[in-house]
Amino acid sequence: MDLSRQYAETRDAQDPIGHFRTRFHIPDERLVYFDGNSLGRLPLTTRDRLHDAIDREWGGELIRGWDTWIDLAGRAGDVIAEGVLGVARGEVILSDSSSVNLFKLASAALDASPGRHVIVTDDDNFPTDRYVLEGLARARGLELRIVATDIDAGVDPARIAAALDDDVALVCLSHVAYRSGALADMVAITTAAHRVGALTLWDLCHSAGSVPVPLRESGADLAVGCTYKYLNAGPGAPAFLYVRRDLQARLRQPIWGWFGQRDQFAMDAGYDPVESIERFQVGTPPVLGGYAVLEGARITAEAGIPCLYDKSAELSSYTIQLGEAWLGDRLALASPSDPGQRGSHVTFHHPQAWQICQALKAAKVIPDFRTPERLRIGLAPLYTRFVDVWEGMARLRDIVTSGSYREFEAVRGRVT
Amino acid sequence: MDLSRQYAETRDAQDPIGHFRTRFHIPDERLVYFDGNSLGRLPLTTRDRLHDAIDREWGGELIRGWDTWIDLAGRAGDVIAEGVLGVARGEVILSDSSSVNLFKLASAALDASPGRHVIVTDDDNFPTDRYVLEGLARARGLELRIVATDIDAGVDPARIAAALDDDVALVCLSHVAYRSGALADMVAITTAAHRVGALTLWDLCHSAGSVPVPLRESGADLAVGCTYKYLNAGPGAPAFLYVRRDLQARLRQPIWGWFGQRDQFAMDAGYDPVESIERFQVGTPPVLGGYAVLEGARITAEAGIPCLYDKSAELSSYTIQLGEAWLGDRLALASPSDPGQRGSHVTFHHPQAWQICQALKAAKVIPDFRTPERLRIGLAPLYTRFVDVWEGMARLRDIVTSGSYREFEAVRGRVT
Repeated sequence: MDLSRQYAETRDAQDPIGHFRTRFHIPDERLVYFDGNSLGRLPLTTRDRLHDAIDREWGGELIRGWDTWIDLAGRAGDVIAEGVLGVARGEVILSDSSSVNLFKLASAALDASPGRHVIVTDDDNFPTDRYVLEGLARARGLELRIVATDIDAGVDPARIAAALDDDVALVCLSHVAYRSGALADMVAITTAAHRVGALTLWDLCHSAGSVPVPLRESGADLAVGCTYKYLNAGPGAPAFLYVRRDLQARLRQPIWGWFGQRDQFAMDAGYDPVESIERFQVGTPPVLGGYAVLEGARITAEAGIPCLYDKSAELSSYTIQLGEAWLGDRLALASPSDPGQRGSHVTFHHPQAWQICQALKAAKVIPDFRTPERLRIGLAPLYTRFVDVWEGMARLRDIVTSGSYREFEAVRGRVT
Repeated sequence: MDLSRQYAETRDAQDPIGHFRTRFHIPDERLVYFDGNSLGRLPLTTRDRLHDAIDREWGGELIRGWDTWIDLAGRAGDVIAEGVLGVARGEVILSDSSSVNLFKLASAALDASPGRHVIVTDDDNFPTDRYVLEGLARARGLELRIVATDIDAGVDPARIAAALDDDVALVCLSHVAYRSGALADMVAITTAAHRVGALTLWDLCHSAGSVPVPLRESGADLAVGCTYKYLNAGPGAPAFLYVRRDLQARLRQPIWGWFGQRDQFAMDAGYDPVESIERFQVGTPPVLGGYAVLEGARITAEAGIPCLYDKSAELSSYTIQLGEAWLGDRLALASPSDPGQRGSHVTFHHPQAWQICQALKAAKVIPDFRTPERLRIGLAPLYTRFVDVWEGMARLRDIVTSGSYREFEAVRGRVT
């Protein structure tokens, strides 16, 4: 393969969605950003919209702004529904954080199957998902059945199927694994879950905006996801939740807040939730975050998931090829090698991954470290160029081959 | 009493915290804003901080911003603790919405008293509080004991005490009533609750930033509150929660999210929460909202609750005096007349309150309507002047005495 920088430039010139990079605020062209799967970049329309929402809407309209803001969570949800997830308007809404939404929807699903006693997940699921499910299982006296997963290969549908029986109420998994980027087979797993009468709840944090999400094709029941990764809505922006239309009136989430109430401002005695997706809202929604999701999701919808996924597969394959060519004997791929089985990030294993991460940051390459000993490279397709991949991997090559990373702190510090 | 505008101007000239108005973005001096208890105004430092957080921190620092943001919820919580609520650092943290926090802390309190079967609240409590408690009682098979309250006079401690027995696990009330502004006697009620071994959970939404909150003096156990009212943190900004230090390690909230986890980025198997206030966090916190709370709470702390409360009492008394002098036969006070029994808003009853509200808005006076037939006038002491009260009440007088409000729509529209 052609290892020249010129080859990367040629690929960029041919990229049908390459121009989307100009829609983002990129103050330092030297910085190679490989962490858009953790925190996406700032879109220019979002910057302008937020400034306007702060100065003119909040500052000038004051409480009257709520005439506009009251359904913002639903409007942003509709853009995600139609433009990102391929489901219908009214099936997605912004609300709370992914963790809180996971709690709400898992609780609702468990309440809908009172005779069943098992929640199924896997040991490679994102920590907060595992903790939330652990808490629910403990509070309700249920079994949390944790399926062993190869952390580099991802969820094996056969192992999930083997864990299913008619005592399972809920199967809750991540669509794209946070560490390896492995893509779970949503269709096979949902089919198997439905065969035993269980509901499925999917965490789409690492897939919304990067890969096709077969909610409709699989018949998946429920999903949650964050918006600050590929949807570029900014740090701590509100999460979204999906409830399949026919389930909405049947399921009731446990936190009976006034934003789910019918004729909310009547302030009546007694909780009487609407039958639509708004029943899964709780408290007063964040307006700035809501606007950021609206703008970010619009750009993703405009580029289109098929184009984004194509580019994402090309970027991750190119990353792996450069890694093999330059560092094949020193760096082990810790992601599926088949692009059809990956999301939009790839991960490498190296015993000194922590040190290498610090060295990369000093060289203006921003990847992410993940335990154990993994270097995660996110390739957000809206603004990552092939030359970014070339530059980042070239700097990685120099750091690893020279051994200069050994100058950096060897052990990850503990937070708190 | 002196009903002239000049008198109001004299009062403003003598106001020791009058200069704080210059710290806010006020684009239209003709607008009389009587709804700072619903959505506070935009502080200039907040506007600047948010623009910088969007453009430079998110846009430029990207994921590296989390080095700064990771403890923002605690830093803002500390300002609220020390500068607003008079409790210690480490007893308050930002997290989620008030509704979600109420659910978390009420659940934790109920889990701590497994042998008790009653939750006590009152029928004038804010709707979302009543709904959340109703949901918890339903899910756990508990009794929700709802004490009748005069909606204009507020919670009667004797009636609450009469509802208490040793089967009560939790007493959950609002400190300042959302409709009448009546101030509940936190010391008397908490003392009565503790006498029967119950925990107390206070909703501080309408009191934080406007009145002294005797959490420490009363020995109150738990509290939640929003930040977009008197703390001026903007629409949908994150809420705060208070857990008395000695209870923190004993209580466990039900949504086991990764922001409560010890050494969160180890991403270990098994939920193992920290023992400090951070254990009541759940998911990734909103950064823009966190900064807005930090800046808003700083201004409140700088002015100081004693000065704010003094001015608030003067403003609300003046509002009532003008109302009585100009409209005494047409408008009935629907708030306690003793300023020591009020928060920072006053409410009037009028059979056509909805129409009057619309007419006021058309005349550039922004009050709030509350069912049934109530006109609510918020008097945020950081930026409301005596001349604002004079102007607003004068326009109200003209609208009511002329009957011009009859041109406006008679019936409140239904939202949803």
